[in-house]
Amino acid sequence: MRNFIAKIILNHMKKAVILLSGGLDSTTCLAIAKKEGFTPFALSFRYGQRNKIEIDASRKIANSLGAKDHLISDIDLSLFGGSALTDEIEVPKDRGDSILSDEIPVTYVPARNTIFLSFALAYAEVLKANDIFIGVNALDYSGYPDCRPEYIASFQSMANIATKSGVEGNNQFIIHTPLMEMNKADIIKRGIKLGVDYGLTRSCYDPFENANPCGHCDACTLRIKGFKEANITDPLTYPK
Amino acid sequence: MRNFIAKIILNHMKKAVILLSGGLDSTTCLAIAKKEGFTPFALSFRYGQRNKIEIDASRKIANSLGAKDHLISDIDLSLFGGSALTDEIEVPKDRGDSILSDEIPVTYVPARNTIFLSFALAYAEVLKANDIFIGVNALDYSGYPDCRPEYIASFQSMANIATKSGVEGNNQFIIHTPLMEMNKADIIKRGIKLGVDYGLTRSCYDPFENANPCGHCDACTLRIKGFKEANITDPLTYPK
Repeated sequence: MRNFIAKIILNHMKKAVILLSGGLDSTTCLAIAKKEGFTPFALSFRYGQRNKIEIDASRKIANSLGAKDHLISDIDLSLFGGSALTDEIEVPKDRGDSILSDEIPVTYVPARNTIFLSFALAYAEVLKANDIFIGVNALDYSGYPDCRPEYIASFQSMANIATKSGVEGNNQFIIHTPLMEMNKADIIKRGIKLGVDYGLTRSCYDPFENANPCGHCDACTLRIKGFKEANITDPLTYPK
Repeated sequence: MRNFIAKIILNHMKKAVILLSGGLDSTTCLAIAKKEGFTPFALSFRYGQRNKIEIDASRKIANSLGAKDHLISDIDLSLFGGSALTDEIEVPKDRGDSILSDEIPVTYVPARNTIFLSFALAYAEVLKANDIFIGVNALDYSGYPDCRPEYIASFQSMANIATKSGVEGNNQFIIHTPLMEMNKADIIKRGIKLGVDYGLTRSCYDPFENANPCGHCDACTLRIKGFKEANITDPLTYPK
């Protein structure tokens, strides 16, 4: 207990960059970073995704969870295309359990987490922060290669060779992935305990114009399953 | 000789992404990729740098060296600041030999090459290209950590864990750094042999409004020294 309190006090002096998409996972991740005592600086992207609603959601979330600052970076990944989230490729629906198969789906955005973490690294270096949080998850996920623990470890070691702070500060950067081994239900239960308002979060890959989720894409399917398993009511409204 | 020709023929079938800043190094790098038989796809960035002249230069260079396509990505690194190239920090001048000291100068842009290579990785994955060229150099350089061979090796191994192509294609991505061990004079001599028009390239960190180089920043100093040592006249005009 004393160690825990000491850690909180120590972290309280520390800034951390939190990648915030406006979805359920990254929001919980921000709440966890805060709970661990970090001063959170949120970073979101307008990257040419279909669901621009994410940006409005991330603004409200950063505000409600007390982020010290919130930057929104414009990067146009639709310049390259190659994904159902950024290109004229249809978002797959109602895939059921095949979401959790080994195949990487068309919603995969080439090198997306590498690009996001690279920006987080730049932001952290300028802030003189050592800690970066990303809400990736290798259990209830779509099989994206850049969500696996071996990827995160590899990025972290690269980051410490790539930067002035990393080189001069002896491997100072740590990429935190508090959700890595949690299932969706446990993430939701953890978030509820930390006071997260999931009504502010947006997970859907292909939302309606009124911002309501489709209820059928992989992200909705995993979310609905998670709330059901957690025995908690999802505050979002799905089509009947 | 036969092996060399076989390699050229093999490469001719291959697309490569070339990071093109419009400077002397990246331009030579593009010419080398072409000479090695690759079909070059150039990628440049409008990243909030002082010397926007670079973009116009890169367009002319991509055209003159026959790039198959040339994408210009807008990413605003001045959102973070923290560098003399993107922020209100003065560009150092007339540093002489201290350019080559171990200290990392204020022109260092946090995580810049990591961000650039991440975008190149996304572009390569969409193109189904295996090869990425970057004109980094660990001899006549300013001591940036993200120009060293250990950094490039680390990025390459991360890239092959991060991506669908990397995972499914068994470590397919190769980050080529043909200039890594060359000094500036050798780079220039190599480029001249390959027909590079250095009059199109722009190296200066702090150019005049008419696009002429300042002649005193680190980039100009290294360039002027390189042309002198190569015994070749720099086609650019420096202040008297």
